[in-house]
Amino acid sequence: MEIGRLLIQCPDRTGIIAAVSGSLSALGANITDLDQHSSDPRGGRFFMRLEFELGDLGDRLEEVRERFAADVAGRFEMDWQLNCASLRKRLAILVSRHDHALLELLWKHARGELDAELTCVYSNHEDLRRQVESFDIEYRHFEVTPENKFEAHRQMLTELSERVDLVVLARYMQILPHDWVEAFPSRIINIHHSFLPAFVGADPYRQAFDKGVKLIGATAHYVTEELDQGPIIEQDTARVTHRHSVEDLRALGRNLERQALARAVQWHLQDRIIVDGAKTIVFSRQ
Amino acid sequence: MEIGRLLIQCPDRTGIIAAVSGSLSALGANITDLDQHSSDPRGGRFFMRLEFELGDLGDRLEEVRERFAADVAGRFEMDWQLNCASLRKRLAILVSRHDHALLELLWKHARGELDAELTCVYSNHEDLRRQVESFDIEYRHFEVTPENKFEAHRQMLTELSERVDLVVLARYMQILPHDWVEAFPSRIINIHHSFLPAFVGADPYRQAFDKGVKLIGATAHYVTEELDQGPIIEQDTARVTHRHSVEDLRALGRNLERQALARAVQWHLQDRIIVDGAKTIVFSRQ
Amino acid sequence: MEIGRLLIQCPDRTGIIAAVSGSLSALGANITDLDQHSSDPRGGRFFMRLEFELGDLGDRLEEVRERFAADVAGRFEMDWQLNCASLRKRLAILVSRHDHALLELLWKHARGELDAELTCVYSNHEDLRRQVESFDIEYRHFEVTPENKFEAHRQMLTELSERVDLVVLARYMQILPHDWVEAFPSRIINIHHSFLPAFVGADPYRQAFDKGVKLIGATAHYVTEELDQGPIIEQDTARVTHRHSVEDLRALGRNLERQALARAVQWHLQDRIIVDGAKTIVFSRQ
Amino acid sequence: MEIGRLLIQCPDRTGIIAAVSGSLSALGANITDLDQHSSDPRGGRFFMRLEFELGDLGDRLEEVRERFAADVAGRFEMDWQLNCASLRKRLAILVSRHDHALLELLWKHARGELDAELTCVYSNHEDLRRQVESFDIEYRHFEVTPENKFEAHRQMLTELSERVDLVVLARYMQILPHDWVEAFPSRIINIHHSFLPAFVGADPYRQAFDKGVKLIGATAHYVTEELDQGPIIEQDTARVTHRHSVEDLRALGRNLERQALARAVQWHLQDRIIVDGAKTIVFSRQ
Repeated sequence: MEIGRLLIQCPDRTGIIAAVSGSLSALGANITDLDQHSSDPRGGRFFMRLEFELGDLGDRLEEVRERFAADVAGRFEMDWQLNCASLRKRLAILVSRHDHALLELLWKHARGELDAELTCVYSNHEDLRRQVESFDIEYRHFEVTPENKFEAHRQMLTELSERVDLVVLARYMQILPHDWVEAFPSRIINIHHSFLPAFVGADPYRQAFDKGVKLIGATAHYVTEELDQGPIIEQDTARVTHRHSVEDLRALGRNLERQALARAVQWHLQDRIIVDGAKTIVFSRQ
Repeated sequence: MEIGRLLIQCPDRTGIIAAVSGSLSALGANITDLDQHSSDPRGGRFFMRLEFELGDLGDRLEEVRERFAADVAGRFEMDWQLNCASLRKRLAILVSRHDHALLELLWKHARGELDAELTCVYSNHEDLRRQVESFDIEYRHFEVTPENKFEAHRQMLTELSERVDLVVLARYMQILPHDWVEAFPSRIINIHHSFLPAFVGADPYRQAFDKGVKLIGATAHYVTEELDQGPIIEQDTARVTHRHSVEDLRALGRNLERQALARAVQWHLQDRIIVDGAKTIVFSRQ
Repeated sequence: MEIGRLLIQCPDRTGIIAAVSGSLSALGANITDLDQHSSDPRGGRFFMRLEFELGDLGDRLEEVRERFAADVAGRFEMDWQLNCASLRKRLAILVSRHDHALLELLWKHARGELDAELTCVYSNHEDLRRQVESFDIEYRHFEVTPENKFEAHRQMLTELSERVDLVVLARYMQILPHDWVEAFPSRIINIHHSFLPAFVGADPYRQAFDKGVKLIGATAHYVTEELDQGPIIEQDTARVTHRHSVEDLRALGRNLERQALARAVQWHLQDRIIVDGAKTIVFSRQ
Repeated sequence: MEIGRLLIQCPDRTGIIAAVSGSLSALGANITDLDQHSSDPRGGRFFMRLEFELGDLGDRLEEVRERFAADVAGRFEMDWQLNCASLRKRLAILVSRHDHALLELLWKHARGELDAELTCVYSNHEDLRRQVESFDIEYRHFEVTPENKFEAHRQMLTELSERVDLVVLARYMQILPHDWVEAFPSRIINIHHSFLPAFVGADPYRQAFDKGVKLIGATAHYVTEELDQGPIIEQDTARVTHRHSVEDLRALGRNLERQALARAVQWHLQDRIIVDGAKTIVFSRQ
């Protein structure tokens, strides 16, 4: 038995669930999980995720998609995608020098806890090559200078566009050119501290320390044209006290970042996220 | 528009969601929330909760139930209930002398945050009369002695059976006779500390203190014939250190108890809980 | 045995703990709790809180203070206060129409869980009179209009200056004139949502909802001349998802606010907080 | 400047803090952190941890210890230890086949976040050799069979007694002979799920699943003669729902275990734990 996943959004109106579940039943599928959300039952937007079992879905994928489009999707003006779980998404990680977020992903991948083909790690530094290669993952170094920045990123994008479905910025400290967002819409995930917009600029943990905050946090989000303002996927916080030094805050922040990012990536890989304008619907079951 | 809630459990097989959603659509209902769970898609048990909008459901409730029974429920061997949200459940609270769990419920009820008719508070003591009556809630005192224990509880049960749909034990320190469980199956909710079976008997917080635990907890559950072993609805914990005195542990325990109990009661009132043998399915959206 | 509490801050240098503990021992006191912090052992600032037992401290309070000043405080250039726990601080609560933060404090006070004389509740509305008076607490209504705003607050301040040691703003929706801060330096505690500076202005929960945040929070802080920017005492957060409506966010926010505020107030009442410029040192043992 | 750490326990009485801090001051030490606890100021037991700065403490360690013993420790009947932070504890990890707790420690060590000399990893299996050796840590395989079990552990103990100060059981699935506890009193740390005594025996997560618990947890503790009942150092929990499969519970449990164990080990390495009979005092600043 193969597992299919269907993600839908459309204007809310009566009969959507009946139509979708009826269509899948007619195809012989057995719905094993269904989660849905309506922004407003009267005139709002409807979102749904289904998991279903269907024998030889991998072979019949195009046929199933065509049937679903013809039967249901057009009638309800749906944005939708229908994927087969056994066709795992291909993933690249971009990293600079901080290893914490990268290592969490490598470790989970090695344990089989990440539903992805981890294709390669790209970096603008050589620092982490040995750690990455010890997991038998390809490490690609692209030197990025102020002069070659545009060209280097164009070359990386050319490579990645053919190789992967999802790009994860695991503390990649360069700003990606806009054509990356066009090439990977809602398919680049970034992680940063979550003080924004409070502590803009350099050394946010120093700023937070000076302000005497009692909480620090991390935010994982999709990358859009607006820097660090894309749809939030996941956030987490930890309590701090006057006893935490700036370095303690940074260490706690690293721990929050690696865990929030790993959850966000896993949810994307499992087709659990629908982007709704500036927001996300996360059918995460947590 | 009135809101209906449908809770279902039955053997899992293909087509249940399509049949249920189709039947509701045919009645003119608009499904606004659906949550489901299968213990195993192959030969397991299927659980579902739906919320739907249907004009004049309050007036047509019996008709809608009959239609659902005839169309779907029989065919899939369903245990089910279909309720109208505007017909709020009637609630009684039993309490002895501890006021924390009681007050949380009274307070939430007064704020309109509890979807119930709070009918009355019964107690085997007079202590809390003034607090309860200040909320304009009836306070019934039943003296319970070793001698009259059986008779007093029989009389209380006779009264409550006619007056309420749900009984909440907010630190009621008497053991209820078995006929209560028969009269209110999966409709009596209790709260206790969650050390069991570790610290049985008197003064569990003293025992926990002596053991040096770093966590304490509270458990809300349905009452069954087996004392304090009924299906768990909700649990919560708090961290403690060597600095917490026994009295500190008790105060933290009270705080956990009042919050865990309030959540469990609210979930029951909103038809979010299905009892599955010794366990619960809680469609709590949290 | 009476309990004393000593709060100290001074430039850090060698020998402070030995001097302070030696001085208290010489007075016959038994130190039962000591917590301290240094911003930097070399040239930083030192902070300490001690609890000690000393018979008839209440009667000897002035003598003990004089001895401590002469023996130790002057030599180390200390800012300090020495209080007797049995002389409980007098507390006033200011509130407008939201009752959640107020009720938590009233409830804890009624249970004996707040180490204060709760003197009175002041409000610019009549709405909460009945709830407050049911706790046998005086309720003072001051009508505040754009025209009389300055005069009304002057009159309130005149009354409160004589009556209380601590003012708690439990969702008081007026901006206090600056002379309040001078009259009650580091002795006015406020609570607000903790999105700032992200969601300034009206209806922050609506703004947070539109942004799709996955966390909301509350911040308790001392009031300074700079609106909502005084030293943070306590913060707390709760996770939210796309399923939470704006009203759900507000309800969760109320729950965070009442708990964060109650903790902050209790820490102040127990002499656990030292203000260090824009920050707080909270010796909270949690 | 070197950092010293002093851990003390003794019968509580007046003047301990003054005597200890006075003695350290007389030695020229600057106390930078002090935490203390009394089980009862009248007739209870007193516990204290101090950090202090003292030039060339490493060279003068024996002298400082002798002075402290003569000046203070004898007079107050203290159990105590005085260590120099720069002399890091030597650590061995024992593991069987589960890698999660091991890897967390290896990773933290590699990042410099573990204040230990990680000397070696011992295992009764070959499975994890490659992972361990990729961190440049020695991997020692001891085959353990029912027949050679006693002899193998004796040989391991002989080796470890000379090599390390602390033994961490990172999911080592053999029961250690009693002479280990004698050789490493309060110096062997173990991790296990924290359902005990509820779910004794095989497959506790299956038992917890069948019971429908809403929380799972992990407990790190010192090993004593009584299996899994030694003094608790740290506990942590995570919420679960009906949606979590047995395998999900196991994965969450692994995550709790690796984090609780890492915290417990770090606190031991930093001399933050005092064993008080069946309990621990953890001066963890969290």
